[in-house]
Order: sequence, then C-alpha cells, then structure tokens
Amino acid sequence: MEYPSQLLTHAVDEFAKLPGVGRKTALRLVLHLLRQEPARALQLGESLIRLRNEVKYCKVCHNISDSDTCSICSNPQRDASTLCVVENVKEVMVIEATRQFGGLYHVLGGLISPMDGIGPQQLQIDSLVERIRQSRDPQNPQPMLNPPIREVILALSTTMEGDTTNFYIFRKLAEFADLKITTLARGVAVGDEIEYADEITLGKSILNRTLFTDSFAKNGK
Amino acid sequence: MEYPSQLLTHAVDEFAKLPGVGRKTALRLVLHLLRQEPARALQLGESLIRLRNEVKYCKVCHNISDSDTCSICSNPQRDASTLCVVENVKEVMVIEATRQFGGLYHVLGGLISPMDGIGPQQLQIDSLVERIRQSRDPQNPQPMLNPPIREVILALSTTMEGDTTNFYIFRKLAEFADLKITTLARGVAVGDEIEYADEITLGKSILNRTLFTDSFAKNGK
Repeated sequence: MEYPSQLLTHAVDEFAKLPGVGRKTALRLVLHLLRQEPARALQLGESLIRLRNEVKYCKVCHNISDSDTCSICSNPQRDASTLCVVENVKEVMVIEATRQFGGLYHVLGGLISPMDGIGPQQLQIDSLVERIRQSRDPQNPQPMLNPPIREVILALSTTMEGDTTNFYIFRKLAEFADLKITTLARGVAVGDEIEYADEITLGKSILNRTLFTDSFAKNGK
Repeated sequence: MEYPSQLLTHAVDEFAKLPGVGRKTALRLVLHLLRQEPARALQLGESLIRLRNEVKYCKVCHNISDSDTCSICSNPQRDASTLCVVENVKEVMVIEATRQFGGLYHVLGGLISPMDGIGPQQLQIDSLVERIRQSRDPQNPQPMLNPPIREVILALSTTMEGDTTNFYIFRKLAEFADLKITTLARGVAVGDEIEYADEITLGKSILNRTLFTDSFAKNGK
C-alpha cells in the first residue's frame, strides 16, 4: 500500500520494526495518533527519546534504574547475602510483584545462546563472579553494607538456553566454598489441574514433594 | 507491577495509551527498544514528533500530504470530475491500492456520530459542498484544472454512522442539478462462498445483479 506522505511512511516504518507490530497495525497506530491532540504523539516521542538517552543501569545489579544504584540495591532492609540471578529486567519486576523475595538481584542481560551468537562474555556473568568474590573477600571494606553472599538463586527459564546458562554459572561459582546455589522449585502451578499437568513437571513435583504443613506455612496466607 | 525507573514508567504509560496496546504489551515494546541499539528508539521517537509537528493536510481533499496540495489532487492525469467521498485517510489508501479509481477524493475526517458528539460541523462536509459549487460555477477561473464535478461516489462504511452521513450529504447535495450521486456496490465478496453470505448482502447482490459479460469485463484481468 502506498502512503500519501513521506512523514507518514517514515513513522509507519519505525513502528513496524517493533516486535509483533505489522505494517497494518503500525498504520492504525500512527493514524490514531494523528487523530488525537498533538500533545499525545509528542509525549510518546519525547518519552522514548528521554528513556533511551537518559536510562541508567544499576552498577551493582544491572537493573534499570534512575540513579547509579537502584532502589533495590540501595535498600538497607533487604538481605544482601542472597542473590537472585535473572535473565532480564522484566524478571526482576515479576519476582518483586510476588513480594516473596527479600534479597538482591543480578540481571544477566540475556541467556547464553550460541545460535544467536550470545556467549558468556556478552552477559553480566563475570561481574556476578566478581560481585560474589568482593563480598566474600576478608579485606571487604564494607562488611556491613556488602555482607558475604551466601546463597545464589538461579531463576532462569527452563529452556535450553536457560539450562546452558545455569550450568555455566554453576561451574563458574564452584570456586566459592560454602556458597549455596539453588534454583526455583519446579512443580504443578497453583490453580492447575493435576490431570492436565505435563509429565516432566508432575514427575518433578512428586520427587520434590514438600511437607503439607510446610506448604501451608510458606503459602503466606 | 512496579517499574524500577520513572523514565520506564513514563514510556510504558505513553505506549499504553495507544489503542489495542495494554500495559504488558507496552512494557514488552519498551524493554525491546532498550535492548536494541539506541538509534532505534530515537528514530521512532523523532519520527513521531516530526510527523505530528510537520504533517500537512491537502487543502483540496484533506488527505495527509507533504505539500499544500496532495499528489492525487495535483496529478493532471486524474479525472477531476469524479469525487470519491471517504471517511478517513486510510480509505484513500485502500481504494488507491485497488488501482480501479482514477478520480479525486474528499476526506471527511470521520462520520456523523451523535453518540460521540460528532456533528456535521466537525467534518469536511461544508468544504465538500463548497468544492462542488466552485467547480460548477460559470465564473470558475480554472475550468481546465478544476472541471465541473459530475459524480460524487459515497464510499462510507455500511454502519449506522455511515448511513446517517450518507443521507446528510445526499440532502446537502440535492441543490446541484445533474450531479450523479452513487454509492459502492454491495454484494458477495470475491472469494466468498454463497452458502455463508449474510442475508442482507446476498439479497442486495441479487437485486443489483450485473450482466455476466459486464462482470467479466470489469474484472480487469
């Protein structure tokens, strides 16, 4: 389809580069913006430019942040001896939304994926090792602010890339004695019917069954 | 869900104002932009700001245009005596894509919809009447460039708003003698099975049946 204006074509082209947005949807969104008051399109445009120009990443955990250290890392109430390793910023948000985790995070920025040309060097794995090493260093200058990390929770997706990354990190962390390395419990989701659970998940949830009284207590309700 | 940064929140808020884009999709799009090279987000932002600040509408037909008169209205090859009245810019594009119409357009900018508070005054109906009147004026200064309009095709949707607008324009145009007012043929869509056509459409397509030889010739294949 031909567009009557270069400006329109350009805006549609840019929108259509977003994932899941085809040219038809892009055109619909652009024409919608043109029908709205001008401020709407300007605000969207400016918010994207500001986000991209001014976004910061926490220098400790690599989460998106408005300052050099994110609000989670700089919160003294949180248990700095437990680290949850996640793939991306999104996972920090969903785990925070559960309100069940009081430790800190470490955002890898992706998963090892040779198919996509992503190796361990592109991810924040070296900085994870360094972060743990510094916290456990006897010369640690701030043992109160930065206590020794005792547990690392690997909270990556159960995909091939997630498993590969899990194993890579597991081996990298072998140098630290007494470091507890855990992973998320796999089991039947809350609300799921047993009848429809897949075999592997159901098998794991039987092997890793928990005491009924424990499951009740941990429910937090 | 809480977002770790004000900039991120702001960008998600703005994206989520678009039609069909919820907060989850907005977050996915914004995080995608953050993973891309910076130019991607900047180009999208700038294209929206430029579009909104610099967009022009053709002063003749009110289509989006890069100049004062759009490429269709300023094309001397087109038949300026036939006007196709459409709801919006999008309809100009889809009719142009058929390559079956050689006349000019008139973009109303919407349909009469008392429910949404849109009356005839908000639409380009007066300018349509004026455009036809000027073209038919014996004092017309440019009879070659701007020949008398002889046919108006009402190409609006078959909704209640479309029908209301059709009737309103039809009555407004009653003042012009010899002005042919037509509407799009309604019938079974090409490729549709008769069995599944709705009754009203099928009824209209029987009433307005065409000569087999005509349908063949008009197919343009």
